[in-house]
Amino acid sequence: MRETLEFMMYDWLKVDSLSERERYAAHTRETFQSVLDLSERIATEKFHPLNRLVDAQEPEFDNGRVRLPGGVKEAVNAYANSGLLAAGHDYEVGGMQLPYVVDMAANTFFSLNSIGLAAFGMLTYANANLLMAHGTEAQRSVFALPQMEGRYFGTMCLSEPGAGSSLGDLTTKALPDGQDYADCPLGPRYRLKGSKMWISGAEHDLSENIVHLVLAKIPDESGQLPPGPGGISLFIVPKYLVTPEGGLTEARNDVVLAGLNHKLGYRGIPNTLLSFGESGGAIGYRVGEPGQGLHLMFHMMNEARINIGMGATMLGFAGYQASLDYARERRQGRLRGSKGRKSDGQQVKLIEHPDVRRMLLAQKSLSEGGLALALYCARLVDEKRTGDEAQRKRAGLMLELLTPVAKSWASEWCLEANSLAIQVLGGYGYTRDFPVEQYWRDNRLNMIHEGTHGIQALDLLGRKIRQNDGQAYALWVEGVQQTLEQAKAHEELEPYVDALAHCMDRLSEATRKAQDPECAERALANATPYMQAFGHVVVAWLWLQVLLAALESPTAGNALVQGKRMAMRYFFAYELSKVASWLDVILKGDDTVLAMQGDWF
Amino acid sequence: MRETLEFMMYDWLKVDSLSERERYAAHTRETFQSVLDLSERIATEKFHPLNRLVDAQEPEFDNGRVRLPGGVKEAVNAYANSGLLAAGHDYEVGGMQLPYVVDMAANTFFSLNSIGLAAFGMLTYANANLLMAHGTEAQRSVFALPQMEGRYFGTMCLSEPGAGSSLGDLTTKALPDGQDYADCPLGPRYRLKGSKMWISGAEHDLSENIVHLVLAKIPDESGQLPPGPGGISLFIVPKYLVTPEGGLTEARNDVVLAGLNHKLGYRGIPNTLLSFGESGGAIGYRVGEPGQGLHLMFHMMNEARINIGMGATMLGFAGYQASLDYARERRQGRLRGSKGRKSDGQQVKLIEHPDVRRMLLAQKSLSEGGLALALYCARLVDEKRTGDEAQRKRAGLMLELLTPVAKSWASEWCLEANSLAIQVLGGYGYTRDFPVEQYWRDNRLNMIHEGTHGIQALDLLGRKIRQNDGQAYALWVEGVQQTLEQAKAHEELEPYVDALAHCMDRLSEATRKAQDPECAERALANATPYMQAFGHVVVAWLWLQVLLAALESPTAGNALVQGKRMAMRYFFAYELSKVASWLDVILKGDDTVLAMQGDWF
Repeated sequence: MRETLEFMMYDWLKVDSLSERERYAAHTRETFQSVLDLSERIATEKFHPLNRLVDAQEPEFDNGRVRLPGGVKEAVNAYANSGLLAAGHDYEVGGMQLPYVVDMAANTFFSLNSIGLAAFGMLTYANANLLMAHGTEAQRSVFALPQMEGRYFGTMCLSEPGAGSSLGDLTTKALPDGQDYADCPLGPRYRLKGSKMWISGAEHDLSENIVHLVLAKIPDESGQLPPGPGGISLFIVPKYLVTPEGGLTEARNDVVLAGLNHKLGYRGIPNTLLSFGESGGAIGYRVGEPGQGLHLMFHMMNEARINIGMGATMLGFAGYQASLDYARERRQGRLRGSKGRKSDGQQVKLIEHPDVRRMLLAQKSLSEGGLALALYCARLVDEKRTGDEAQRKRAGLMLELLTPVAKSWASEWCLEANSLAIQVLGGYGYTRDFPVEQYWRDNRLNMIHEGTHGIQALDLLGRKIRQNDGQAYALWVEGVQQTLEQAKAHEELEPYVDALAHCMDRLSEATRKAQDPECAERALANATPYMQAFGHVVVAWLWLQVLLAALESPTAGNALVQGKRMAMRYFFAYELSKVASWLDVILKGDDTVLAMQGDWF
Repeated sequence: MRETLEFMMYDWLKVDSLSERERYAAHTRETFQSVLDLSERIATEKFHPLNRLVDAQEPEFDNGRVRLPGGVKEAVNAYANSGLLAAGHDYEVGGMQLPYVVDMAANTFFSLNSIGLAAFGMLTYANANLLMAHGTEAQRSVFALPQMEGRYFGTMCLSEPGAGSSLGDLTTKALPDGQDYADCPLGPRYRLKGSKMWISGAEHDLSENIVHLVLAKIPDESGQLPPGPGGISLFIVPKYLVTPEGGLTEARNDVVLAGLNHKLGYRGIPNTLLSFGESGGAIGYRVGEPGQGLHLMFHMMNEARINIGMGATMLGFAGYQASLDYARERRQGRLRGSKGRKSDGQQVKLIEHPDVRRMLLAQKSLSEGGLALALYCARLVDEKRTGDEAQRKRAGLMLELLTPVAKSWASEWCLEANSLAIQVLGGYGYTRDFPVEQYWRDNRLNMIHEGTHGIQALDLLGRKIRQNDGQAYALWVEGVQQTLEQAKAHEELEPYVDALAHCMDRLSEATRKAQDPECAERALANATPYMQAFGHVVVAWLWLQVLLAALESPTAGNALVQGKRMAMRYFFAYELSKVASWLDVILKGDDTVLAMQGDWF
């Protein structure tokens, strides 16, 4: 994985050139490499040995606390204390001003080695980022800085038992706490009451405190909750109370662990049902203005969604590597036509069988495609932060468009890669003696959390391709055209240029059709196949860029170039050809799903 | 499920007309229905309540024995004692001469309610069938009849730790047992030594005895094992020894439980590593002639493979039903355009969301498609057993061709259906509080056992379409043509007739190309995508037949007809369109997989 990661960072995305920007001026490839080294070492030494254990010994509910297996505290704190949680922030607050793309590259190793344990860091990182961007100075110093230092951990509390995808329907209430509620130095002080569901990392003793970021509604004068998503506000609710000056106390806030969810996978981090305000109300400090909650949370959600895509990709890589290692060792069967019926010769290695090679190549093509997509998005985040005005605007629009793709594509296809990893190992892959079945179970979450597949599809087709008069889509089409032009310089790429151009035409036709008011309802009913097609075209485009980088790299070795060439060929021959099928239902305006009635099932 | 099952049996496959055949003359629809009633009742009352328990409390190794959760013995014996294990056999041996298709229909309920527990019966049934067909009279009465009565249970012992897909490489030895070995009334007596892996149901105390059917090799005079699959023989190895007259003793044979496999799912039945002959040699009685072992076992394997397809289908149905029930109850979100932003209206039920309906319709289309395929094959078994000479020949050839399809198609696509069931439930689907995650884990085995997906694909493309000069393929094409002709009578079916005819042309072109010696190697490297395409065309063909039966049925209700119409429409619009992509690599002679080298990964 690391060789491909570095190749994509330096040969393809030219990450070293970020040092030319003022914010990153102190950095060189050496500093980037030392961050990768540090991350890889901690992840390999501390996370990897625990990954099976945290699955087998899932978190246990113990009298209102969560019991985690031994070793977790040490491993998670090795990461938390490394300085990586602050790495992207300014020097003046203790950060390293590391580019986001390098930050994400560093995080790959944690997800690769234990997705569940990595989630503690991801949540803390995202929580602190939100507060640094939108909190008051006091909120930043009391709640964000200790997270960047790894002393406090963070959570995101959005869903409720009756409000998952439908956040506008949440019912957690926040009431002003006393007459002086508005004068609190930590922000307007409220008392929260309600239940939150699916909250990861919300109870443990790994850190000095836990900072919950909680969505809740402030009732109006008649006691009614304001309707819909626009009525949601955001609150900081610490597990242990702090003094008005921000000092940590030993007093528990009124937040109680009501239960643990027993998950199919991803068990390295506990997932909880939390109860706020059973004894009068949990103290919370409002962030931003009333009604801004969802908007602020989405600041965090968008990066979180790209991170979900990266995590799904790392599970894909983990399965790919495990099944590749197995296929290179295990002997089974004989090749057809090579006198397979004689017992005097040895059996061949699994990797010699074409069907096994097909399954390995599929995993390579899908995992590396997912990595390209996540890194490309991370690079856009840097562009959005440090580019000139035109670059920032372009990057912002592209990110809006590609975020649902980055999240959904990897979640779907790296799960498929994990299924192929099981298949390569055969019966052994179906046992818990090998890690591949766990990767498959862990990965199944990624199409669900942080917005389901269906929600991402509606976001893409119902919102992102339309907003700003379709500017984002137009910018992306332009980007694809540039890549096609560049690829035309290489004769061997001609068939791929043609294939991608053809798919782009069809996709643009479907996109136009989906916006035609007469077809829009039918198209939205098929938002998921649309998103599948879109995702495959995006990844084919990135694969073409990656191969171009390989062909034009002065330093890439032969095996790397050949591997990238074959993986791209695989993607075009076996995957991109599916696009026609997905677009078909949009182009034909298929209404089967709308015509189906509930009592005909 | 039952309504569709009966519709397919009576309206589509005209199962009642089997009563016109001499063997089934005593049967009527009423006797068939009473068998279904009995099976559904036992499965619902005894199997269903245990399904979660047998997953949570997986079989434990306890000092050479297997400990199973309480209740399993009663449940499995309710089935074993019901007479169903003998139902297909002749009256004179205690059977009911039930048609095979009814037998399979009855078994659907057990798989639907607990796939792992159902496996005990499946194995016993198949074991007894093999012995009834190929054993001597003594072997039938001593080992098969007690299985038909449910007193003994059976296993199939094929794989070894180093020989799974490559059975020709197995190393279990069978040596003649004494000078008089050939004179044993129970068949030539041998002593077996070796290890067998992945043996389901090989140790338990549910039955009076366990009959292992074991593949082993008889060394030649120089002590060498005969090479390849042609050197394999078949032996009956009972867990408890029997007297030469067949009386059960309390003496254990030399077969030891060496370990249990800890599986991802399918935990209702223990899966074991067995050691034969640690103390001198396990006593085994040869069935058939030396070297015939694999041939005889395949008699059992072919029906077992159709049963795997049926089991995978039932898991698909189980997930479909669970997610449909959930989607009809759970309220979440609002529909677009219907003032979703106001909080005064209730949220809508999940089933109102088009994307949820799409996922439910996909599950319906895939599960019912799998059922149609399994029942169609079962109906062919009856044709092969009781038809006239021409019918028997035709049915035999069709079965050969369709068996790898029946096994692989349902294993792949009903697994996909189970993933959609999880998705419908969202976060709840990812927890063990709902059954859908278990169905998904259980179903993942079906692409692996009884011949992996890759093995089925080689069987189809490398063997079945070629054998008898392509007669089976030609017969099937003729069958499709007949359906297309019949469908032309219905104007509404015109687009589906065209779509299927187009796919058939492409498939036949790919099939011809794959047999061209110049392309054969590349085509075989793509045997899996070929099989995927073939499977989808087969199921589209059966869906067309099913809809024709619905349209022409005098009794089918409106909801059933509409449901079948929509499910067929879904299959053609969303699934059949994938065929072009899979065939593409064959038609273009894509050699990516062959060109990829091991050190480029």
